[in-house]
Amino acid sequence: MSKVQVGIIMGSNSDLPVMKQAAEVLEELGVTFEVTIVSAHRTPERMVTYAQEARARGIKAIIAGAGGAAHLPGMVASMTSLPVIGVPVKSSNSIDGWDSVLSILQMPGGVPVATVALNGAKNAGILAAQIVGAYEEQIAQNLDTFKQEMKDKVLSAAADLEEKGYQAF
Amino acid sequence: MSKVQVGIIMGSNSDLPVMKQAAEVLEELGVTFEVTIVSAHRTPERMVTYAQEARARGIKAIIAGAGGAAHLPGMVASMTSLPVIGVPVKSSNSIDGWDSVLSILQMPGGVPVATVALNGAKNAGILAAQIVGAYEEQIAQNLDTFKQEMKDKVLSAAADLEEKGYQAF
Amino acid sequence: MSKVQVGIIMGSNSDLPVMKQAAEVLEELGVTFEVTIVSAHRTPERMVTYAQEARARGIKAIIAGAGGAAHLPGMVASMTSLPVIGVPVKSSNSIDGWDSVLSILQMPGGVPVATVALNGAKNAGILAAQIVGAYEEQIAQNLDTFKQEMKDKVLSAAADLEEKGYQAF
Amino acid sequence: MSKVQVGIIMGSNSDLPVMKQAAEVLEELGVTFEVTIVSAHRTPERMVTYAQEARARGIKAIIAGAGGAAHLPGMVASMTSLPVIGVPVKSSNSIDGWDSVLSILQMPGGVPVATVALNGAKNAGILAAQIVGAYEEQIAQNLDTFKQEMKDKVLSAAADLEEKGYQAF
Amino acid sequence: MSKVQVGIIMGSNSDLPVMKQAAEVLEELGVTFEVTIVSAHRTPERMVTYAQEARARGIKAIIAGAGGAAHLPGMVASMTSLPVIGVPVKSSNSIDGWDSVLSILQMPGGVPVATVALNGAKNAGILAAQIVGAYEEQIAQNLDTFKQEMKDKVLSAAADLEEKGYQAF
Amino acid sequence: MSKVQVGIIMGSNSDLPVMKQAAEVLEELGVTFEVTIVSAHRTPERMVTYAQEARARGIKAIIAGAGGAAHLPGMVASMTSLPVIGVPVKSSNSIDGWDSVLSILQMPGGVPVATVALNGAKNAGILAAQIVGAYEEQIAQNLDTFKQEMKDKVLSAAADLEEKGYQAF
Amino acid sequence: MSKVQVGIIMGSNSDLPVMKQAAEVLEELGVTFEVTIVSAHRTPERMVTYAQEARARGIKAIIAGAGGAAHLPGMVASMTSLPVIGVPVKSSNSIDGWDSVLSILQMPGGVPVATVALNGAKNAGILAAQIVGAYEEQIAQNLDTFKQEMKDKVLSAAADLEEKGYQAF
Amino acid sequence: MSKVQVGIIMGSNSDLPVMKQAAEVLEELGVTFEVTIVSAHRTPERMVTYAQEARARGIKAIIAGAGGAAHLPGMVASMTSLPVIGVPVKSSNSIDGWDSVLSILQMPGGVPVATVALNGAKNAGILAAQIVGAYEEQIAQNLDTFKQEMKDKVLSAAADLEEKGYQAF
Repeated sequence: MSKVQVGIIMGSNSDLPVMKQAAEVLEELGVTFEVTIVSAHRTPERMVTYAQEARARGIKAIIAGAGGAAHLPGMVASMTSLPVIGVPVKSSNSIDGWDSVLSILQMPGGVPVATVALNGAKNAGILAAQIVGAYEEQIAQNLDTFKQEMKDKVLSAAADLEEKGYQAF
Repeated sequence: MSKVQVGIIMGSNSDLPVMKQAAEVLEELGVTFEVTIVSAHRTPERMVTYAQEARARGIKAIIAGAGGAAHLPGMVASMTSLPVIGVPVKSSNSIDGWDSVLSILQMPGGVPVATVALNGAKNAGILAAQIVGAYEEQIAQNLDTFKQEMKDKVLSAAADLEEKGYQAF
Repeated sequence: MSKVQVGIIMGSNSDLPVMKQAAEVLEELGVTFEVTIVSAHRTPERMVTYAQEARARGIKAIIAGAGGAAHLPGMVASMTSLPVIGVPVKSSNSIDGWDSVLSILQMPGGVPVATVALNGAKNAGILAAQIVGAYEEQIAQNLDTFKQEMKDKVLSAAADLEEKGYQAF
Repeated sequence: MSKVQVGIIMGSNSDLPVMKQAAEVLEELGVTFEVTIVSAHRTPERMVTYAQEARARGIKAIIAGAGGAAHLPGMVASMTSLPVIGVPVKSSNSIDGWDSVLSILQMPGGVPVATVALNGAKNAGILAAQIVGAYEEQIAQNLDTFKQEMKDKVLSAAADLEEKGYQAF
Repeated sequence: MSKVQVGIIMGSNSDLPVMKQAAEVLEELGVTFEVTIVSAHRTPERMVTYAQEARARGIKAIIAGAGGAAHLPGMVASMTSLPVIGVPVKSSNSIDGWDSVLSILQMPGGVPVATVALNGAKNAGILAAQIVGAYEEQIAQNLDTFKQEMKDKVLSAAADLEEKGYQAF
Repeated sequence: MSKVQVGIIMGSNSDLPVMKQAAEVLEELGVTFEVTIVSAHRTPERMVTYAQEARARGIKAIIAGAGGAAHLPGMVASMTSLPVIGVPVKSSNSIDGWDSVLSILQMPGGVPVATVALNGAKNAGILAAQIVGAYEEQIAQNLDTFKQEMKDKVLSAAADLEEKGYQAF
Repeated sequence: MSKVQVGIIMGSNSDLPVMKQAAEVLEELGVTFEVTIVSAHRTPERMVTYAQEARARGIKAIIAGAGGAAHLPGMVASMTSLPVIGVPVKSSNSIDGWDSVLSILQMPGGVPVATVALNGAKNAGILAAQIVGAYEEQIAQNLDTFKQEMKDKVLSAAADLEEKGYQAF
Repeated sequence: MSKVQVGIIMGSNSDLPVMKQAAEVLEELGVTFEVTIVSAHRTPERMVTYAQEARARGIKAIIAGAGGAAHLPGMVASMTSLPVIGVPVKSSNSIDGWDSVLSILQMPGGVPVATVALNGAKNAGILAAQIVGAYEEQIAQNLDTFKQEMKDKVLSAAADLEEKGYQAF
């Protein structure tokens, strides 16, 4: 049934082109999720409500993406005991992504955010699936299949390169 | 009388050795202030209350200091129309101060934080006094006196150096 | 009436595409302002005059934007007791904006510059309005309205996303 | 009973002063764990075995710490479907921690590592507990207690500061 | 005869536009080589096999290119006594190349990787030829010719510039 | 006779331990000089006077040292046609020297500052002597002697190392 | 007459679009100069000859531009007592210019390079003219005129902006 | 017999505490070597001679260490067809090692330097041994033994930790 396992939130709809990759990979891995916009700086009350109610709604992990001085992941993490995955987004106002990365990664002791690579929303989705998969066998199997497919793609690319030679590329 | 004009807050009492310099210079400049601890990540509700009530309490500017992924200045700024001055603190968990600086400075459009130099709490105090002094004549005069004293110190140091020669130092 | 509350200056007219955002938001917030060009390195005397006369002309805050080794905000701050807001501009000669940011932010003790994000002229305008709004009630109300509109836009975008689904974006 | 829920590994016993903080907080939170040394570069076969057998042994999350060009977290992540938490250690051969952070955080698409702050082993422990707590109610309650205690400490420090005044510190 | 002297491997065929420059210069210098794809994170077993068998196959040096959190060069180096040359690739997921450089360069004591410039695959090829040329006279002579040609090109460009004047360019 | 050829200025006497190295090497090279304190931010008028009168006083080059957001070298350069040599000082308020370096080096087109290494006051002195020596033969000869002495020291250290072996060190 | 006062050299003709700006401004300022290509890494002997003969040929300053690991300015400086001006070029193989800047600026004690901003060849030309102008009155006057023209352009741009209003831009 | 296989050079005897680690590991691995001082900036002619004669003297690889704007490795590489290994030294005048790393690593196309980690002289020694070992069987065996010993140390440390528990450390 459709109970939501992962919540995906972001500070602005301009983050959507990056953040939708989290949704797409969760879809592929068979994990249920929801996607919405919650701004730490423009809708702080909405953020408080979202963070405080997530666990009771059955959510297992929250993915939060933001750029620049990115406070959404850390603030949500301060108000829930769920694991929060932070996606630093290289937004238009960011200095090459360094501000996004550091303001999500460098959380003080007591309030962790599980940070992934700059614009790494796909990996955030996979990480959320791994958290679910640590306890739900079907998702773990889906992750194994996913891993196998990545491997097969590399092997196939290698075979292709070896056959045609590097000059063909 | 003793109405508070400037609020000084910080995420942890480990920030006090830096942040007390804001208090000291405000004292010197004749601006009234209060000092307390408000943690964005450990006491989010207290932060919300502080930010939302500050203006009604007569405060004219808030100085907020924090280190690492520093969310306090920006989150307070999101919940008040008062000017918020951010002090990036080079705390023990900071990467040479870069995280503190960027997570305070690089706020998104709509929610400014007036950022000063790393560990620049003294300048935060002066800046708060300048905000008050833009409207209150006595404080502006105190600032002029302060500027004159800085100048006199440089002139006196220059005279001393010229008289004794650089070899004496 | 038309007395100028905020002065906006910049080192070169090539900074205008960024700096005009300060003017636009001040216009929207009902704060009076003036815009002109003052170069620290090419017209130092003009800079001295501007800084020294601003307060007597009734100005409450100065917004100064510059790029590269940006000396305009700090030098103006050295010659007035008014709050000076610095906008680091990512000019064509800048190394990814780091020089602009650091040469405005890292002012020595005694001479603060209220620094905003790289290219953050819009936030500089809002910050100037907040300084005015700390003392002038009408501007404070305008800022509250502005905050409410930002919030409404986020809520509307969230509703839109939830209704259409992430695939639509 | 004593089944291991979290595995803590590190590249060298010189990482132990940092990494033991993960163990200590897991102890406090009631999560079972094991601690050992696995070097990506010196014992690659041991690393392969550890990564491939962890899930079958009942482990729910792996915490891996390393410094400099830190390959342990990412390589373990490549060989398990469990969530892997990476702790960048500021080891003696590191350039201010940047190498440790970037070589753990910036994983390619498909193989996430949940990265925490530089030397953030305590947060890695809490994050592992949050993963367990997403499914095991007792651990979630322990996390809530832990959060409450952090909050109480801040409130107590704030009361202390307000009572004694900043000059006392 | 065609025994392979240098192995060129990379994490993904998206690295090929950079990495093929190593192949081209080896071709020019008369060194035999092979090119294939080996991913540290997607095909770890293939990587182990490649690294462990290279020496017995007669290979004298391995060139490994990767981007972002680049683990391929270091992991291969951990499993062979051959010199491994690492090429940091500025891949699409890299933060301006810093992650690629640091996660290849900053190897721990005991496991060196001979790192070349960002995207410096051509230099990796030359370096591999220099290793071969340290023992094989013909390749050393080819390297001398190569050096002479570089010099002649500069002299010819200098003569051209001096004759036509800088205004012509 | 004692006419001053080089002026050495700095923002604060806390810069003196670094800046006196410029004086010492000028002494050694037979170039006449003066040393004083001129602060861009605390004594802007004194700076204007110094810069505008230097040439008429017979000075051939000005050495200016400052730390943090260092405006002294650039501002002096804006008000004289003499060559200005900037020394970025790693002062106590500097972020590892980056602010000092960038705010001196990255001057806009039209107003150069001849920047030397972080804390490189000795090299600033030598550079000033080279400027003098380009026109005054005696100083050029002194520079040649200086170069020869540096060379002799290296050769002597090399001989010492080769004789005693590296184990002795 | 046409004796050369300034030598402009660069490592490759790909540096010419940047470096020709030094030539253009020297032309404008009435300083005689020559332009050619000298590569530290491809024509080391030519570099030695150029550096060692420059002074005897009457040259007063050498401008050397290079990118990436830029060794030309520093190596030339090691072999002449003339002032050497280094221009860090943001070449195609550079990491955002940082390598070019640091490998020119951070010279060891004894061998200064007068470094200008990244791609700052125009300022290198002006600096060379200032060195000449410290001793040759006509060039000093040309520099004063140049400064006055820069000032006039700013004043004219300011007047234009004030007249038309910022909305016109 | 004692023919020298590897040359170790450095710019100053202040680099010796770092660079002697290369000598020590070569000693351990049975590779013959020599150690001396060659300064690119202070003894350029000595550097030219060393580089040009090394191959004829039977040397197979040159290890060159230097700090700050480190030109020695790259300049030596420009004058020999031997592989040159560069060791960036974090010397007292270096900005946290970044200048040393970048001015060695970022060599232009055609002139590679095999760069190792900051202060990574031990790894430079091992890399030189690997180059020798690619052709000389005895050295390859020594490298295998060395690798095995590193592995044994990790296994022993792991056993020790598992036996005593993390609290003992």
